[in-house]
Amino acid sequence: MEQRLSLVTLGVADLERARRFYEDGLGWRRGNNHPEVVFFQIGGAVLALWRRDALAKDAGLPDAGSGFGGITLAYNARTREEVDAVLAEAEAAGANILKPAEDAFWGGYSGYFADPDGHVWEVAWNPEWTVADDGSVRLGKRSGP
Amino acid sequence: MEQRLSLVTLGVADLERARRFYEDGLGWRRGNNHPEVVFFQIGGAVLALWRRDALAKDAGLPDAGSGFGGITLAYNARTREEVDAVLAEAEAAGANILKPAEDAFWGGYSGYFADPDGHVWEVAWNPEWTVADDGSVRLGKRSGP
Repeated sequence: MEQRLSLVTLGVADLERARRFYEDGLGWRRGNNHPEVVFFQIGGAVLALWRRDALAKDAGLPDAGSGFGGITLAYNARTREEVDAVLAEAEAAGANILKPAEDAFWGGYSGYFADPDGHVWEVAWNPEWTVADDGSVRLGKRSGP
Repeated sequence: MEQRLSLVTLGVADLERARRFYEDGLGWRRGNNHPEVVFFQIGGAVLALWRRDALAKDAGLPDAGSGFGGITLAYNARTREEVDAVLAEAEAAGANILKPAEDAFWGGYSGYFADPDGHVWEVAWNPEWTVADDGSVRLGKRSGP
């Protein structure tokens, strides 16, 4: 198995509400046009929105989970100031701020929001990581938490 | 907020067990050297393994979830045959096969496994998507499910 990830799919209760949050709220540009699934190109991978019950069924799992799912997504901001700006933008778009940005124990600055379905995004500035012009991040020499 | 994802963090019960699965089992190469977090470079983003309780606490959430978390990760194989090979490799590494590969309703071929912490990976071949040499995928003209 090559060391890569092609797609992250967020199971959602209301596809139109989720689409609005990412497209209208955060200003992302949708990459497809299909009534049942929404795709966003994110670097060399794709973020998908799909009905949570359909996703669970497709994976052969009961759609019975609740609470923290054990996965977080993160957006590395280019500057410390961008962290606050992105959290404010997400809140204005309808996100729930789980933790306002604060100095992180690992030397950066970080906060968290949950999207309308409770999917958890960290917004972080990490002085040890560089965000390239194309948005990619690369592990450097020092890669502690 | 730029349209991108920097980091996916999988909360794990046993960091060493999770590291073994991805590094020794799937043959991935770790990108850091820290006792409490494991990083893997995945294209222009990073996959992290971190203690689930620490991750929940960092996000300001109770570590009380159970069942399907509503997020799946996916690996797009380069060929139909690679799907079966990757599922077999994952099973040999200790994964739980949630669904053996089968023809998918959207025209491809797909199966699912769960890693030792229950994180769900789809392994799929999508004839409509091209996996580039560097492992990236790009949404094409037709982007149905």
